[in-house]
Amino acid sequence: MTDLPKNTDLPSYCQAVAAAAKEASYQLALLDTEAKNRWLEASADQLLASSDMILEANQKDLTAAPSYGLTDASIDRLRLDVQRLEGIASALREIVALPDPIGEVIEGFTRPGGLQIQKTRVPLGVVFFIYESRPNVTADAAAICVKSGNAVILRGGKEAMHSSQAIVDVLRMTAETEGLPAAAVQLVSTTDREAVGHFLQMDGQVDVTIPRGGEGLIRRVASEATMPVIKHYDGNCHVYVDLAADVEMAANIIENSKCQRMGVCNACESLLIHDGIAELALPVISERLHTHGIEKRADDKAAPHIQGSVAASPEDWGAEYLGTKISVAVVDSLEAAAKHINRYGSGHTDAIVTNSLQSANRFTQLVDSSAVMVNASTRFNDGGMFGLGAEIGISTDKFHARGPCGLRELTTYKYIVNGQGQIRE
Amino acid sequence: MTDLPKNTDLPSYCQAVAAAAKEASYQLALLDTEAKNRWLEASADQLLASSDMILEANQKDLTAAPSYGLTDASIDRLRLDVQRLEGIASALREIVALPDPIGEVIEGFTRPGGLQIQKTRVPLGVVFFIYESRPNVTADAAAICVKSGNAVILRGGKEAMHSSQAIVDVLRMTAETEGLPAAAVQLVSTTDREAVGHFLQMDGQVDVTIPRGGEGLIRRVASEATMPVIKHYDGNCHVYVDLAADVEMAANIIENSKCQRMGVCNACESLLIHDGIAELALPVISERLHTHGIEKRADDKAAPHIQGSVAASPEDWGAEYLGTKISVAVVDSLEAAAKHINRYGSGHTDAIVTNSLQSANRFTQLVDSSAVMVNASTRFNDGGMFGLGAEIGISTDKFHARGPCGLRELTTYKYIVNGQGQIRE
Repeated sequence: MTDLPKNTDLPSYCQAVAAAAKEASYQLALLDTEAKNRWLEASADQLLASSDMILEANQKDLTAAPSYGLTDASIDRLRLDVQRLEGIASALREIVALPDPIGEVIEGFTRPGGLQIQKTRVPLGVVFFIYESRPNVTADAAAICVKSGNAVILRGGKEAMHSSQAIVDVLRMTAETEGLPAAAVQLVSTTDREAVGHFLQMDGQVDVTIPRGGEGLIRRVASEATMPVIKHYDGNCHVYVDLAADVEMAANIIENSKCQRMGVCNACESLLIHDGIAELALPVISERLHTHGIEKRADDKAAPHIQGSVAASPEDWGAEYLGTKISVAVVDSLEAAAKHINRYGSGHTDAIVTNSLQSANRFTQLVDSSAVMVNASTRFNDGGMFGLGAEIGISTDKFHARGPCGLRELTTYKYIVNGQGQIRE
Repeated sequence: MTDLPKNTDLPSYCQAVAAAAKEASYQLALLDTEAKNRWLEASADQLLASSDMILEANQKDLTAAPSYGLTDASIDRLRLDVQRLEGIASALREIVALPDPIGEVIEGFTRPGGLQIQKTRVPLGVVFFIYESRPNVTADAAAICVKSGNAVILRGGKEAMHSSQAIVDVLRMTAETEGLPAAAVQLVSTTDREAVGHFLQMDGQVDVTIPRGGEGLIRRVASEATMPVIKHYDGNCHVYVDLAADVEMAANIIENSKCQRMGVCNACESLLIHDGIAELALPVISERLHTHGIEKRADDKAAPHIQGSVAASPEDWGAEYLGTKISVAVVDSLEAAAKHINRYGSGHTDAIVTNSLQSANRFTQLVDSSAVMVNASTRFNDGGMFGLGAEIGISTDKFHARGPCGLRELTTYKYIVNGQGQIRE
């Protein structure tokens, strides 16, 4: 599985995979919703029916895991059992229930002269998806891509190769029984890192690349890719406590944004507070964070109000800690908060706590991020929480898709123009 | 004007221009429609009031034109007079009448738990626009960008530098009198080609680059740019004559698509015809093209039905002639036509002539282009013809914007989430 097909060099292999995906994408674009849903249902059934085979493959990955130096947490995420397979199967069934974006007429109008113009939603084509070593993501990503009419080339982490291959085998088998092209779902069958580089050169054949993983990987992909990329580098999310904030609400929202789950991109890393409320609110907030063992990296104005704070250094303002630290700065206005956020933030998720309608409106206008929350935890910026259903990633770019990316974000549109022989004067 | 400000090196100059644009973009994002429209109206008035100054600047460009080796046609496009200035002013007034895309709530819904989510249209931020030597484009592009809430950095052709600078001086003066930041519109004040390279490295400061001009320029921009690019390389547009076509309609549409204006990206360059109708239709069509002096580059099956055809070479299928040539191939099915188009076409505009509803539906599904026309000239793929109003370019990419790009295509969205203290369980 980590070997290429015999007598094939790496560039030819990657080229063949991409060509098969492109060909499959043309067929997928024609499928009706029912055919795609039948495949999802059959795949859910077959993943459970094939549990012995999949768990056996998973065991090979688990056996090899120590040689990759995986942490216990990573090994736990890699591990499959019957219950987790049932989770994967139900995730596929949830995608059945999501509306099919393809064929939606986004706009339609008739021009003077009688041309009927329809802006119609169509698939992007071929998605190249690079992801971490989690077998459940293999099934999820394939389901999201195919339901939105795209062929997908999966490049999973090598630590989950056997598990992912077993899952993909099932998905391809059910594709064939349900009349979908098997090349709708392909797993790159080599762990050679150069393979990624080859796919990234295939603008025109690969329509979008979606990398998930560490910032280094994502920067490499963004810099090498010749096609568009859906990505986010990091999440330095802010909560700004306005002069007109309710202190208890502020403490709740900061506690939840920072501590509910620390290792995620929509966790709060930076606290900004208006200097008119700092003296009152900071002790309450910092006490709350203290119960979770959070280290407060404070500026000169915040420090006096925070017991046991550490002096912030300039690097703290841009830091994504993904752990038990938070930066704290006092600002003298909402505008200064917004400016700080636009300068140091990631354009991911930023929140204001306020009871002032003016402040809420001004903050949501000024802050240039994918999601701006008013009196709500940053942790809500998530496809599931937004009701998009499954999500394949989150984008902090402004182009094409911003924020959580679900089925619709994997589509584009074409203009279909119906005439009766019209020519241009 | 072709000199940098004193004591400034090129990278610092470009950096300062981009920083000023970014700062202006934050202010523009807050403007209401009326403020932007007042600026457009004042600019239209002031361009006419400043006609002496602008025509004098234009005269400098015209005097220098022979030294740039401009053709007579290019010199004509460069030339301004009072009537053309009136045309520029009315184009600005037409943009006043277009709906402002900013602030549109694209979707809004309330989640279980009470979070109110609004997907709201906002500007992209800073547009870097590279364009040919046409003074009217300077005003048009600035108006489109600012009306959609974006700051623009204009990089015009050196041949029109004096004219463009005079126009931009007016636009900046009216910006200041109408309360807009002057840096909303900046013209790069050096013709140094390296300046373009500096701006293309400024991902995060420049939000999108839009290059117009020759394919070489656009390929250079696409390859160097670190931010998204809205572009099209070329337009190898096809007309496919289906078995069920009306021959007279086919001849009309091909004549119009090929000959109404030859040097444009939505002109037809390739004719495909079903072999069941080739014998009947090709003589009629080729006779019609003959009256316009079009050379027919035909394949072996088409040639017998076309008087005076020339044998097509493999390069003809991908060629954008922009002149008096057309390639002609006979195909044995609609599917073969679609396959040919997806392989050799530009994804720009492709048309079918048919009276069969099935053929129309199948063709529009199979052909992967920004616009697919049924029984209408390819020449209709145009922002004006589609009723988008002003257009800043056309995109053959699938990402973000496809087809004609007007005000709305220069926007993105952000999620604004209103809560009442919600935290995530």
